[in-house]
Amino acid sequence: MKKSEFGFIGDIAAMFGALPHHGFEPIGDDCTVLQMGDEALVMTTDMLVEDIHFLRGASLPEEVGEKSLMVNISDVAAMGAKPIATLLSIALPESAQGEWAERFMRGYYEASEREGVALVGGDTTASRDKISINVVAIGRAPMTNLKRRSAAKVGDVIAVTGKLGISSKGLVDIMFGDLNTAAAKAHRRGQARVAEGMWLGAREEAHAMMDISDGIASDIKHIMEQSQVGAVIELTKVPTDYDIRYATTGGEDYELLLTVEPSAFDTVAEALRAATGTTLTAIGTIVEGNGIEWLENGKPTEIEMRGFEHF
Amino acid sequence: MKKSEFGFIGDIAAMFGALPHHGFEPIGDDCTVLQMGDEALVMTTDMLVEDIHFLRGASLPEEVGEKSLMVNISDVAAMGAKPIATLLSIALPESAQGEWAERFMRGYYEASEREGVALVGGDTTASRDKISINVVAIGRAPMTNLKRRSAAKVGDVIAVTGKLGISSKGLVDIMFGDLNTAAAKAHRRGQARVAEGMWLGAREEAHAMMDISDGIASDIKHIMEQSQVGAVIELTKVPTDYDIRYATTGGEDYELLLTVEPSAFDTVAEALRAATGTTLTAIGTIVEGNGIEWLENGKPTEIEMRGFEHF
Repeated sequence: MKKSEFGFIGDIAAMFGALPHHGFEPIGDDCTVLQMGDEALVMTTDMLVEDIHFLRGASLPEEVGEKSLMVNISDVAAMGAKPIATLLSIALPESAQGEWAERFMRGYYEASEREGVALVGGDTTASRDKISINVVAIGRAPMTNLKRRSAAKVGDVIAVTGKLGISSKGLVDIMFGDLNTAAAKAHRRGQARVAEGMWLGAREEAHAMMDISDGIASDIKHIMEQSQVGAVIELTKVPTDYDIRYATTGGEDYELLLTVEPSAFDTVAEALRAATGTTLTAIGTIVEGNGIEWLENGKPTEIEMRGFEHF
Repeated sequence: MKKSEFGFIGDIAAMFGALPHHGFEPIGDDCTVLQMGDEALVMTTDMLVEDIHFLRGASLPEEVGEKSLMVNISDVAAMGAKPIATLLSIALPESAQGEWAERFMRGYYEASEREGVALVGGDTTASRDKISINVVAIGRAPMTNLKRRSAAKVGDVIAVTGKLGISSKGLVDIMFGDLNTAAAKAHRRGQARVAEGMWLGAREEAHAMMDISDGIASDIKHIMEQSQVGAVIELTKVPTDYDIRYATTGGEDYELLLTVEPSAFDTVAEALRAATGTTLTAIGTIVEGNGIEWLENGKPTEIEMRGFEHF
């Protein structure tokens, strides 16, 4: 849980901070962490609501099923952990209780099968007229593999997997009624970087890591806050096929944002590509301070960068 | 997750049964169980939807917050485990994003504090016009303390904690506009039997156990199915201050339904009362077969018993 998600009622993390934690780490990362000996169990949850996160007319039920799983296991992978199981709650209006629900479950099942994760619990209920879906994803990792937002070091290379911006470009396509562009399909069927997250989890040269859910302009701030560092990002290095604003402030790409020991960056990038086929691109540097500087060809840019707001 | 909750799309438990389980037990109890050495981690989830599980005009926000926690930790206690943490997801329409949300969180916090459970993760999002709430509760127990629905033995005493029927009587009061009866308050603020569940978890004379969420007429069938046994219940022994139909087919009492080694029943009941102040009442016997027989003063009754349907 991101602290800011409970901003509407003040600092819930602080409110609950005084209660016994029973071995769980405090709120602040992609997942909560429960240490069990040398191993960590990690857990995360995301709620998807009709007309907020998806439109029944614009996404196939199978796509909503797949996406519900993917947004959650992306958070597990971003900790360097292996997703092992999920719990699924779903509230269905009468209009979705037949075919829509069956097709949703097919999409959820096929993605679960592909990723090798079990369905171990859940709840179903009626609702008045809108669909609500809540998924909890559970993962495991050796404690030493866990990647936290607080682990960035001054001098680290800031890097991202894959290419950015396709999901938000797809959302705009959908808003204009172009449901069948490659970007629109990518938006509806975002894939989590599970193999990459687990692989990077095992590399000690990778320091801080998280998944990109609100755009790097917003998400890098979580690493900066938790690690008490600043960042410099060179816009021309951000890997994208679209407008730079989609790539920096567009959400839901589910690529990984991480910081890497600078002397090891080339080796790690090459080995990640050999192991998973996925590129790792250096886009900036962790610096002292608490500010973020955006450069364009080495010079300060005036483009204003804001994160994508789901809420 | 109860199997039947996914009945609308066929047998999901079977559909997912072929996937790797990664140490989780198959679906079928109040909670899913992950064995970690000699210890078990248990997890359960429940979704509460506005106008289905609560009415904004009939429940205080604090009461909805408390109830959201209680229905979940009741499932943990019913396994004989200690609730340790929760994850909370909430979708809020604009009309609930201010005062309602703050008061909901206050109720959730106060119940968490009283029960000693941490809040370790969650999600908040907007919704069009109705509130959806999803809670996951996590508990721990020694593996040997876990009470499963499948552990009933022929000859066992069937027993319940406390008194039944007050919650469904309260629901009827609320439907008739009587919001302030003792039963209506009990319905809105049902308390989980946490101390009793943990205490019974440590007693090997207690065999099968679950919480009563749909009424004993419906819930005993889960124990019968999972344990492959039948049951005889004497209506005059069912502890209640209300009409027997509320006590047998009314939901949401969150008392415990369990089966106990017959020679130990009196000892266990007396010791439970001494330890927690809560009564344990014998209402019937586990028998061979797969049917349920309802008696009234030892004679078969014609009253038809159906469980409470949330859905």
